[in-house]
Amino acid sequence: MSAMTLYIANKTYSSWSFRPWIAMTVKELPFEEVLVPFDDDGGNPKFREFSPTGKVPVLDHSGATVWESLAILEHLADYFPEMRFWPEDLESRSLARCVSAEMAAGFATLRANCPMNMRREPSAVTMSDALKADVARVETIWKTLLERSGGPFLFGPLFGVADAMYAPVVNRFEVYRLSEDETARGYMETIKALPAWKAWEEAAREEPWTVAADEA
Amino acid sequence: MSAMTLYIANKTYSSWSFRPWIAMTVKELPFEEVLVPFDDDGGNPKFREFSPTGKVPVLDHSGATVWESLAILEHLADYFPEMRFWPEDLESRSLARCVSAEMAAGFATLRANCPMNMRREPSAVTMSDALKADVARVETIWKTLLERSGGPFLFGPLFGVADAMYAPVVNRFEVYRLSEDETARGYMETIKALPAWKAWEEAAREEPWTVAADEA
Ligand SMILES: N[C@@H](CCC(=O)N[C@@H](CS)C(=O)NCC(=O)O)C(=O)O
Ligand SMILES: N[C@@H](CCC(=O)N[C@@H](CS)C(=O)NCC(=O)O)C(=O)O
Repeated sequence: MSAMTLYIANKTYSSWSFRPWIAMTVKELPFEEVLVPFDDDGGNPKFREFSPTGKVPVLDHSGATVWESLAILEHLADYFPEMRFWPEDLESRSLARCVSAEMAAGFATLRANCPMNMRREPSAVTMSDALKADVARVETIWKTLLERSGGPFLFGPLFGVADAMYAPVVNRFEVYRLSEDETARGYMETIKALPAWKAWEEAAREEPWTVAADEA
Repeated sequence: MSAMTLYIANKTYSSWSFRPWIAMTVKELPFEEVLVPFDDDGGNPKFREFSPTGKVPVLDHSGATVWESLAILEHLADYFPEMRFWPEDLESRSLARCVSAEMAAGFATLRANCPMNMRREPSAVTMSDALKADVARVETIWKTLLERSGGPFLFGPLFGVADAMYAPVVNRFEVYRLSEDETARGYMETIKALPAWKAWEEAAREEPWTVAADEA
């Protein structure tokens, strides 16, 4: 049996940590979790002890170090093909990779202006044009994929990498009230109903730490 | 036979376009190239006609639209396994994905301050601490991988996705004189000696367009 340790930061704020965590938890892959909380400024020099970039998440898999949320998810997909992290047909798989890479590299405004915050009381924010464009793009992606696959997940009956990549956005849409779109709200309900989501959220609520920069 | 069309922008400046282009050219995959030049501001509303994000590169593969440079490279790796875009053993493959995802999502300072420019006369720039950190991280990645694999490419004898992802950085290191590191300079020589690199660079030199924002 291979041993996996996932290094993460605060469940309240660490959107990148949430991605592999929710994927591994939904798929019931056994792993040890090591949570190293952020300093006041949203980093922590201690991350360097296990992370080549000084950032989280990092997966230690039997001594191999895997970093970058998307690469961790690809690693899991590669290592555990029976978990079907990616859709099976090549065209759907490519599409899932497009929207996953788009999330990994893009949506700068959404990420900067609306940090993930699992404890925030929902309330609307003023929306710049750039923020509106990011929100509209997420809505288009979700609608296109859900219509194509029939749902409830982005690529059909199974939770996959694309759902993991967009999970932090579900929180952002919720707590900053970014979308009234019906399909988007339906998808958000699906994700928030997952036991893995609830477990993460509950743990976040019990955390004693506050990072001022993420309390927008 | 499947038909591939790669939509790109100016060879002088479009670092994201360069990635799939050099990979497909090195591997001698047949494709049609459609170059749509940037407007003065480094975008172009016409990109919307073929690109779901309004950005390049985009690959049309027999009618399927694939966007995001990293996802295009994953698509090619998946579709043409015999080209060995990724290393064969699982641990090397994960490592290649980590450094490729890190490039896709990170290095914000290097990208913003030192835009790819295939026509720039090499000259040094003032380096901020953030830029120095980005350069040092690239040097570490290259050195670690080349020592591990024996070179000449990042994962050994074959050019792969990781090399494609870092190809624009070879230009940046060169034209802004960012590194004197011997291993880095050796790797840069390897990449610049590729016929694919030379073909791209020559075509860039013949382009009539200038984008002021990228003439830092
Ligand atoms: N592209 C990386 C981003 C990772 C990242 O930025 N993580 C944040 C926490 S969510 C972090 O560790 N920040 C600490 C720092 O930047 O010092 C990934 O996908 O894993
Ligand atoms: N994450 C994307 C980035 C693509 C990108 O930003 N492309 C630039 C050209 S190099 C672009 O199309 N810019 C036009 C714009 O942003 O309007 C990828 O990896 O393909």
